[in-house]
Amino acid sequence: MNGAESLVRTLLASEIDICFANPGTSEMHFVAALDRVPGMRCVLGLFEGVVTGAADGYGRMAGKPASTLLHLGPGLANGIANLHNARKARTPILNIVGEHASDHLQHESPLRSDLPATAALISDWHRVGGRRTIARDTAEAVTAARSHDGQIATLILPADTAWAPGDEPRAARPPAALQRAEAGAMARAVQALRSGKRVGLLVSGPAVEADGLRLLSRFGGLANLRLFAQQSNRRFARGRGHLVVPRIPFNVDQAVQMLRDIEALVLVGSHPPAAFFGYPDKPRLLMPPGCELIPLLAPGGDALHTLAWLADELGCPARHRPAAEAPAPEMPASNRLDPDTIMQAMATLLPENAVVVDESVSSGRSLFKFTDGAAPHDYLQITGGAIGSGLPMATGAAVACPGRKVVCFEGDGSGMYTLQALWTQAREQLDVVTIILANRSYRILHGELKGVGIDNPGEQAHRMLDLERPTLDWVSLARGHGVPAVSVDTVGGFARAFRNACAQEGPSLIEALLP
Amino acid sequence: MNGAESLVRTLLASEIDICFANPGTSEMHFVAALDRVPGMRCVLGLFEGVVTGAADGYGRMAGKPASTLLHLGPGLANGIANLHNARKARTPILNIVGEHASDHLQHESPLRSDLPATAALISDWHRVGGRRTIARDTAEAVTAARSHDGQIATLILPADTAWAPGDEPRAARPPAALQRAEAGAMARAVQALRSGKRVGLLVSGPAVEADGLRLLSRFGGLANLRLFAQQSNRRFARGRGHLVVPRIPFNVDQAVQMLRDIEALVLVGSHPPAAFFGYPDKPRLLMPPGCELIPLLAPGGDALHTLAWLADELGCPARHRPAAEAPAPEMPASNRLDPDTIMQAMATLLPENAVVVDESVSSGRSLFKFTDGAAPHDYLQITGGAIGSGLPMATGAAVACPGRKVVCFEGDGSGMYTLQALWTQAREQLDVVTIILANRSYRILHGELKGVGIDNPGEQAHRMLDLERPTLDWVSLARGHGVPAVSVDTVGGFARAFRNACAQEGPSLIEALLP
Repeated sequence: MNGAESLVRTLLASEIDICFANPGTSEMHFVAALDRVPGMRCVLGLFEGVVTGAADGYGRMAGKPASTLLHLGPGLANGIANLHNARKARTPILNIVGEHASDHLQHESPLRSDLPATAALISDWHRVGGRRTIARDTAEAVTAARSHDGQIATLILPADTAWAPGDEPRAARPPAALQRAEAGAMARAVQALRSGKRVGLLVSGPAVEADGLRLLSRFGGLANLRLFAQQSNRRFARGRGHLVVPRIPFNVDQAVQMLRDIEALVLVGSHPPAAFFGYPDKPRLLMPPGCELIPLLAPGGDALHTLAWLADELGCPARHRPAAEAPAPEMPASNRLDPDTIMQAMATLLPENAVVVDESVSSGRSLFKFTDGAAPHDYLQITGGAIGSGLPMATGAAVACPGRKVVCFEGDGSGMYTLQALWTQAREQLDVVTIILANRSYRILHGELKGVGIDNPGEQAHRMLDLERPTLDWVSLARGHGVPAVSVDTVGGFARAFRNACAQEGPSLIEALLP
Repeated sequence: MNGAESLVRTLLASEIDICFANPGTSEMHFVAALDRVPGMRCVLGLFEGVVTGAADGYGRMAGKPASTLLHLGPGLANGIANLHNARKARTPILNIVGEHASDHLQHESPLRSDLPATAALISDWHRVGGRRTIARDTAEAVTAARSHDGQIATLILPADTAWAPGDEPRAARPPAALQRAEAGAMARAVQALRSGKRVGLLVSGPAVEADGLRLLSRFGGLANLRLFAQQSNRRFARGRGHLVVPRIPFNVDQAVQMLRDIEALVLVGSHPPAAFFGYPDKPRLLMPPGCELIPLLAPGGDALHTLAWLADELGCPARHRPAAEAPAPEMPASNRLDPDTIMQAMATLLPENAVVVDESVSSGRSLFKFTDGAAPHDYLQITGGAIGSGLPMATGAAVACPGRKVVCFEGDGSGMYTLQALWTQAREQLDVVTIILANRSYRILHGELKGVGIDNPGEQAHRMLDLERPTLDWVSLARGHGVPAVSVDTVGGFARAFRNACAQEGPSLIEALLP
């Protein structure tokens, strides 16, 4: 058994049976091992950003790491942006990155680069896998990926480690228990709430999945407590039956407005609320000056335990309250397609138990307004601001969730980053409907230009922010990748196309032409 | 004048008037400055790999750096692969990467990352541009990019450096003179040649541009000297009238065969010849055991001076010999389209003074065989093995060379990495004809799999190496980006399409269906 086979068998023994891959020469022994060892499903991505973004979507929905297979330093580099998003989300991922044979690295060759430094940039754990220790190294990498509520682990696989004899495959040890809140911090949080102060509870991570929301419902009787979710979260349980927790808005003024009355802010699995960007004359942190920050539990800790403990301390009823009934969305009265009407129509028609992936950037900000009372679904969003996450994330979510419809809202600007994901959806016949919100610009940047004080952008600025001359034709782009597509410009047209897409399995794309 | 304007004015004063850009919020002041300061041509790329690859193509053909504009750590990360290629080529590039406002970096926010570490990974020079020193920092970055025959310089631009008042714009100082060969090494090289040993001269960089080849022609009378070029080079002057210098083949066995008689190898601007990859039972270095290595000039040094000096020392005639007349290529007799017939047909029909960009990977290895006697042209190739360089490089070369046809040979696998470059070609109406060699596989990896000893790949391996189910439709992909395209499957069909493409200006694409 060579090292590559030791590695693959260790992954399988550790319940990692998906590999999103874009291999090269240095990974050929790994590829060959896949045919000798049954059980690993390999999913090819035609660009590494697709591979790592799919692993992010998979990890969020499967709750366990996928493996990726990447080719040398530049291959890993191409995957960094979506690993950045995944890391901010705390999605567990195990990267396997092929490297030159150890005795070849001393020579200058085209693909030589500093792979350990590249891995260090984007990984919580990384190691060069050794000859005869590769199974052990792999098992430790799996454990690392599973630790602290999800980490990025990167195992570098030199070609000679892959081709030399390997060690005995084994199952990874379970990760250490999640860190829990400390009594001192708990006492501060309890005291703030008992003092009658207006307290905010800012949550993220597992707190906004179904179990977390049920725990949060226990706080419903506390008049001086308000719940907030981080702006970006790994996975949010949404729709009918789920507690509605508002997110901190992207817009600094709106965020400051939302938090303006809060006197103490308790953080459970979230960082202090900071602006997405720093602007010349706006605050960097979003809570009011003088607001007490109480970091009750750091990100990566045991949020469910912390919430239950806090509720117990406060004498909240042990029973979860049923979520208030949000009105079911209805089709918009207008036939004019715009960011609001398309979200409203989608919310009305959304199938039960769907996965909604959102990288609509500027167009999607009204989505939550319409989906409080929609069919129950999971909501995945871009978490690290590195655009190009949506199409790959939808791809990976669909691999993780056969039988569930994946609905992907994607901006045209961000969609172009990793459009190759469509091909993987076609090859794997994944049940994804992609909705391209085609406003033909980096619309968000028009707002940002105003945000830094520039009201009348000139011709050069327009050319940098608009995606016109020529316009992108998403129907052709999708077909080129093997995905059927239609273009719509009315609410009625969208509704027909969306119903059709939901009535059948397999990938499709709707180009929604927005004003 | 704010810092962004100081920066732009310094670029213009330093003769950098092209900016390949994919901006975000943190770069909005830079974008706004472009409208206040006339003279900078901004070219938008829809993905950062397009931006950096275009800067590579531009730098190779213009002989001076373009600037790039990138957005934060993930934006730079998306550009790393093509910066890797550019760095191996020693193409001068000046990256400007926006960063959060300095006082925002202390807070965790979605796009926060270690940008200096990312820059360090891929740059020969990098610095965070300071408030009130940004013009000076920019000028030093330009000098760094121009130094040592071309470097990657990365200037990090915090948002507050851009919006705060800037310092006085200035022109960059010229770089220090290139390093010259040392007398001791020269004496060794001369002695090896005078001894009657079979000597190889392995060159790269400026040595294979037109002036370098003329200098190399002076060695024509030395019976015991053979000339070799590195496998990958920044820019190679090729075709009628240019000295033919064979490249070291990619294939290890063929390379070893080519060098088997050499007793001393003199390196001018090139590294010792190493295999592209290390294989289990093949040598890592390609010259025979016992061959003396004489590193006469390191990469980045003054190759032209060194060659002239060596020729003088050896008493070679001062005059350049006219290159031997290579036979003009003729159309292939067969109508069957394959990698050889398409290269042969292209070589026959190639317009004068074209720029040929080659990322055909497995299909293009026979190109040189047919182009020795073709119309004179410049030949640009992938230099760092990080695929996805071709379409962007052609884009940048066309920006640098108005009036010259750019012909881009691209594999279907590698083309998919950065296909968004087609949109930039359409927007800028660049005179590029892209030829997709559609073999519908990572063909090179089939060979590599054999190379590591796997003769009968199974179903999983096939699925990782083949681009079928579904096949990519490059005609639709091109049209989706606004580029007209046709598909051909015969030599006659290709010849018609190529003639048409050459008869008109502007971008077009030919999908060549190969067996």
